[in-house]
Amino acid sequence: MQRDEAGSVAPCAFGAPFRERLRQLFVWRRDVRRFRRDALPEGTLERLIDLAALAPSVGLSQPSRFVVVKDAARRAAIRTCYSDCNKEALAAQRPEKADLYARLKLAGLNEAPGHLAVFADPETRQGDGLGRRTMPETIDYSVVLAIHTMWLAARAEGLGLGWVSILDPARVCEILEVPAGWHFIGYLCIGYPQAEDNTPELEREGWERRRSASKLLFYR
Amino acid sequence: MQRDEAGSVAPCAFGAPFRERLRQLFVWRRDVRRFRRDALPEGTLERLIDLAALAPSVGLSQPSRFVVVKDAARRAAIRTCYSDCNKEALAAQRPEKADLYARLKLAGLNEAPGHLAVFADPETRQGDGLGRRTMPETIDYSVVLAIHTMWLAARAEGLGLGWVSILDPARVCEILEVPAGWHFIGYLCIGYPQAEDNTPELEREGWERRRSASKLLFYR
Repeated sequence: MQRDEAGSVAPCAFGAPFRERLRQLFVWRRDVRRFRRDALPEGTLERLIDLAALAPSVGLSQPSRFVVVKDAARRAAIRTCYSDCNKEALAAQRPEKADLYARLKLAGLNEAPGHLAVFADPETRQGDGLGRRTMPETIDYSVVLAIHTMWLAARAEGLGLGWVSILDPARVCEILEVPAGWHFIGYLCIGYPQAEDNTPELEREGWERRRSASKLLFYR
Repeated sequence: MQRDEAGSVAPCAFGAPFRERLRQLFVWRRDVRRFRRDALPEGTLERLIDLAALAPSVGLSQPSRFVVVKDAARRAAIRTCYSDCNKEALAAQRPEKADLYARLKLAGLNEAPGHLAVFADPETRQGDGLGRRTMPETIDYSVVLAIHTMWLAARAEGLGLGWVSILDPARVCEILEVPAGWHFIGYLCIGYPQAEDNTPELEREGWERRRSASKLLFYR
């Protein structure tokens, strides 16, 4: 980018049509659990990770560690981990919601062609600790920002992403043999959605409904 | 949105020009610490919060709590909290980086017209605990997804957002008198940037440099 004599660069303006499309992207970006089995074009995950690396991070620490899971045995172990955790979650449901919970499809681990585990490295020296002395959890938050960047970029390409959190973090670290100290943030299924919708699946299935933003807003 | 007989809605496609603009948005979305003092148009924060409410949340729990900080005494107390925490952070710097740290501008609390504190409510019953049994931290992550949604929407409108984490969470909760149990996630300064740039300020100031995504990528 060319800088003028004062060191400034010409700013990048986004017009109203782009803002409206961006709003539609926020609306249509869904957690996807029903994938087609079609393979992803070579390099798809790497391209999405390139975009994720543009996300903000505390002190420019870039703590995200993206692990592409290709090995069939490791994928099977992750599915077993999910299945065990989900059985426990079902057993812990309130009786009046247990049947509905059992019917929900909460992960696409069997069908999604792309599996990506994402970790934080809290021991990274990058950024020299700036901004995270009183709030070390901002390292984890930085990884979440990268995942969200990837999520939006994927949807804009017609790809679906499902974030699986019904997993035991310690077991995920063991299965994937990641360095000690890495902190598991999320396991992402990525592929072509069977269908697209602008309403969350949990709302369509009757599990929960969205509240308007005004319920989340306070003044001080 | 109109549904056909099978209950499907026509999907929303995003073309290559939109994807390129979205990439530019990721590139130009910066943490802003240098704001003009111009007031925000009435309703700006509420509009951004409306968009933030479209973000994904674990089990559709919508745990974000947005607190617009208007009171001058509370704003002053937040500035003092920042100043105290930043003095401690300066004292903890390695000697060879202390001078540079002291010169960095790390928050726009004095100038930014909009102040927004964002919390998680981990006790919310919305979502009935779905997806967060083994990973309760996904409640906090959901709030981070909402903040990032707002960050991108703000930049698309020409507004800057700066995330302040050099604060003592317990003191922030006291100053803003939020309900017990809420968990402080971040304090956001929002306003018009004095200048825009596509390179992080910490990189321009020589604190840290970005690494390419390939350094963050692993295979298993």
